[in-house]
Amino acid sequence: MTDRLVIFDTTLRDGEQSPGASMTREEKIRVARQLEKMRVDVIEAGFAAASPGDFDAIRAIAETLKDTTVCSLARASESDIERAGEAIRPAPRKRVHTFIATSPIHMEKKLRLSPDQVVEQAVKAIGWARRYTDDVEFSAEDAGRSELDFLCRVFEAVIKAGANTINVPDTVGYNLPNQFAETIRQLLERVPNADKVIWSVHCHNDLGLAVANSLAAVQAGARQVECTINGLGERAGNASLEEIVMTVRTRADIFPVDTRIDATQIVPASKLVSQITGYPVQPNKAIVGANAFAHESGIHQDGVLKHRETYEIMRAEDVGWTKNKLVLGKHSGRNAFKSRLAELGIVLESEETLNTAFTRFKELADKKHEIFDEDLQALVSDETILPAQEYYKLNYSRVSSETGETPHAQVTLSMDGQERQAEADGSGPVDAAFKAIEQIADSGTKLLLYSVNAITTGTDAQGEVTVRLARGERVVNGQGADTDIVIASAKAYLNALNKLRSSQDKVNPQV
Amino acid sequence: MTDRLVIFDTTLRDGEQSPGASMTREEKIRVARQLEKMRVDVIEAGFAAASPGDFDAIRAIAETLKDTTVCSLARASESDIERAGEAIRPAPRKRVHTFIATSPIHMEKKLRLSPDQVVEQAVKAIGWARRYTDDVEFSAEDAGRSELDFLCRVFEAVIKAGANTINVPDTVGYNLPNQFAETIRQLLERVPNADKVIWSVHCHNDLGLAVANSLAAVQAGARQVECTINGLGERAGNASLEEIVMTVRTRADIFPVDTRIDATQIVPASKLVSQITGYPVQPNKAIVGANAFAHESGIHQDGVLKHRETYEIMRAEDVGWTKNKLVLGKHSGRNAFKSRLAELGIVLESEETLNTAFTRFKELADKKHEIFDEDLQALVSDETILPAQEYYKLNYSRVSSETGETPHAQVTLSMDGQERQAEADGSGPVDAAFKAIEQIADSGTKLLLYSVNAITTGTDAQGEVTVRLARGERVVNGQGADTDIVIASAKAYLNALNKLRSSQDKVNPQV
Repeated sequence: MTDRLVIFDTTLRDGEQSPGASMTREEKIRVARQLEKMRVDVIEAGFAAASPGDFDAIRAIAETLKDTTVCSLARASESDIERAGEAIRPAPRKRVHTFIATSPIHMEKKLRLSPDQVVEQAVKAIGWARRYTDDVEFSAEDAGRSELDFLCRVFEAVIKAGANTINVPDTVGYNLPNQFAETIRQLLERVPNADKVIWSVHCHNDLGLAVANSLAAVQAGARQVECTINGLGERAGNASLEEIVMTVRTRADIFPVDTRIDATQIVPASKLVSQITGYPVQPNKAIVGANAFAHESGIHQDGVLKHRETYEIMRAEDVGWTKNKLVLGKHSGRNAFKSRLAELGIVLESEETLNTAFTRFKELADKKHEIFDEDLQALVSDETILPAQEYYKLNYSRVSSETGETPHAQVTLSMDGQERQAEADGSGPVDAAFKAIEQIADSGTKLLLYSVNAITTGTDAQGEVTVRLARGERVVNGQGADTDIVIASAKAYLNALNKLRSSQDKVNPQV
Repeated sequence: MTDRLVIFDTTLRDGEQSPGASMTREEKIRVARQLEKMRVDVIEAGFAAASPGDFDAIRAIAETLKDTTVCSLARASESDIERAGEAIRPAPRKRVHTFIATSPIHMEKKLRLSPDQVVEQAVKAIGWARRYTDDVEFSAEDAGRSELDFLCRVFEAVIKAGANTINVPDTVGYNLPNQFAETIRQLLERVPNADKVIWSVHCHNDLGLAVANSLAAVQAGARQVECTINGLGERAGNASLEEIVMTVRTRADIFPVDTRIDATQIVPASKLVSQITGYPVQPNKAIVGANAFAHESGIHQDGVLKHRETYEIMRAEDVGWTKNKLVLGKHSGRNAFKSRLAELGIVLESEETLNTAFTRFKELADKKHEIFDEDLQALVSDETILPAQEYYKLNYSRVSSETGETPHAQVTLSMDGQERQAEADGSGPVDAAFKAIEQIADSGTKLLLYSVNAITTGTDAQGEVTVRLARGERVVNGQGADTDIVIASAKAYLNALNKLRSSQDKVNPQV
């Protein structure tokens, strides 16, 4: 008998806590739609009490999804749980996920509560959460460094109070697989009514062991894994969804569980999240890296030819790798464009937005003969599609670069609706364009990271630029795509400046 | 009593088998020097029989290193082992690593040998290897899918024949930690004289478990781990050296072993390998990713402030993360330049090369005020430093990009010493430059991948461009760095074309 392994995706909550990875409401909805298409069981859509923006995004996702459970995180306080409960209210399936720290070091140094007080608070939290939904998850923050006896006591109490999923996080990524599995095994044995709830794990990757720890826990009886697309998350990230799902499936001979994930949606989800957050996936990443299914060695290729199974344990098609497909071209009409967007799960909300997007599509098709799905994703990520949100906008740019001459740039921006012009020299055309922009914006930011990736193959591909800017404690990523790398860079820089204006301070929980 | 865990780095052999990651002789020597500085025990410098270029590189490394053991891979044939033995001859410490497949599927489909014939061949191989060195390693290819009884039989025979390290690879990355550990445990129990040799593992990362499998094997008694910097390697790569080393050290409470690695050299090694191979490291990579030690969450930061240990299990400084240090500037002289290169382990072989490099350094310092170590690494990676190897060379370029106009480029190359000029339009300035180059080179290649990363922070940083080109079955990566992104792109493109001319077909083993 094969158990269901519940896949709980926290890309929109823990993943979004990666420096600069914060997403807009619309971007979160696009990711949520893709996750539902992939048949994820539960989406942690955010932390409602963090900010009004987080609340709104969760609410919008709750209004959008039909099948996947929508969850909000909440600290074990009445006000946090109220915000969470309100945010998820419209969802057909909804969950509140509440947490409190249980390790001696956290209780003492961070919460400044006694163990008794922590148990009392946790039990109250479950009661508050049950006002909004029957589906309540409880997490013991830093369980990996908590005392087992105390964990048993807290879990017994919250199960009695009505929690139905119990999550055991390894917050700092300190555990080893056999040791973590032993913890889960002990909890399942010792906690009264352990068999009445689903046991969950949430592992961090600081030592590169998040996936191994999660899988060891599943072998010990856990039946929910918290994970993210591409293993996104703070520091070295969370357990990666694609590795968990494919290991369980590839080694069905060992794991007595399966997921309901449609694995062919894994690569599209990976690309979407990478594109939206500006976090590249390294080529040698398992499952979703560009090389994951590429074979270089001669001996090896020979082996593959002689007998496919010699070296292949998964097929690239099974996880959604396909050759770039020509989807649209210069002569494609408005309806073809609209329906391809719909197939990609992209719904543009007004006719006006659709018109702007279609105009941009036609401009792109003039420069680039073949338009792929990746190009469409980049196109709708472009802020020009949503003019209302833009404070800075690029109207015109001209750069020159010649061996032996100083690179020079001239730009015209609209800044809050007003046109401004500037020019500057730089160490290269991109530097010159950024310096010209700064003459207008004077943002006081520092450029931390600059990267470009071609969205598809071929020299006429669009370059997707990510720019990470810091001002004080605040860090934002800006993205821009264009066939012209200088224009893409300018767009990315302005996108980051726009985000810096609109983003707010918020509290990010650490589970 | 703490055992030594032998760190066997195969970045230069298995890592180099990543598509397009092939390195020149000089690049391999630089990596080898860095690995020795980090106190790696054994370096697998290549596969001598693969090509004359591989042989030369291993020989050069054998002449360079003093402390670290230099190893060459060899199939279990007399001619392969002779090449390996000759290549490593100059090294003070040397090893031959020979292998043969032992899984039913490989023996039958690939080798077309009976099990008896495989044992006989393996034993002969050890004898051939012992002619060159007393330090002989034997690998059972695809051990992960081999029958345990047969593995025991082969290993018993090769130990008797004089092998002192026995390697158990998981060639296709199919194993799970507890299962792999059980295999190692059984082998240690069942193979006669198991206690006379060092047991080694070599894990692939197809399911994201290479590190976890290696560590589980160490817990079961393995005392050598084969790994690579950044987890580089075919498909999803090998076990990453940095994760292995830091887990063993961070969890010294559990692992009864330690390595002699100087961990502060880990981040410099990671950057060097990434820069030379053109393989980026994703920000959420454990230990060496840009975010690995970055803390975003508010709650979390609060925790760190209140008590550092709350969230930190390692310190960034311990693995070599430092702020970019200003090392040289416009007014630095030739001696300062030379001695800083020496500190980075870079030895330029002739006065002429040093002069060329110093000229390039002065040009860079004119454009960019602060010169960091990363800039120097990029500078000496530049092919202009080694003019002899260049078939194509960029003499001049001019590009323009203006909103509403078609981007245009004009380039002058020297091609085999002759000057050629061309111009072209493109979808952007980089595309235009590539098209102009192709008018001259007419290479018939396809651009598979294009990426740019800023080498340091700040808008005037150098961009390091990687271009991956394919022609037929051949794949090469080209790199170029410049403060001007268009020039860096043109250099990278030409570097790839030069590599495509010089690289040869070679056989890559699959261990």
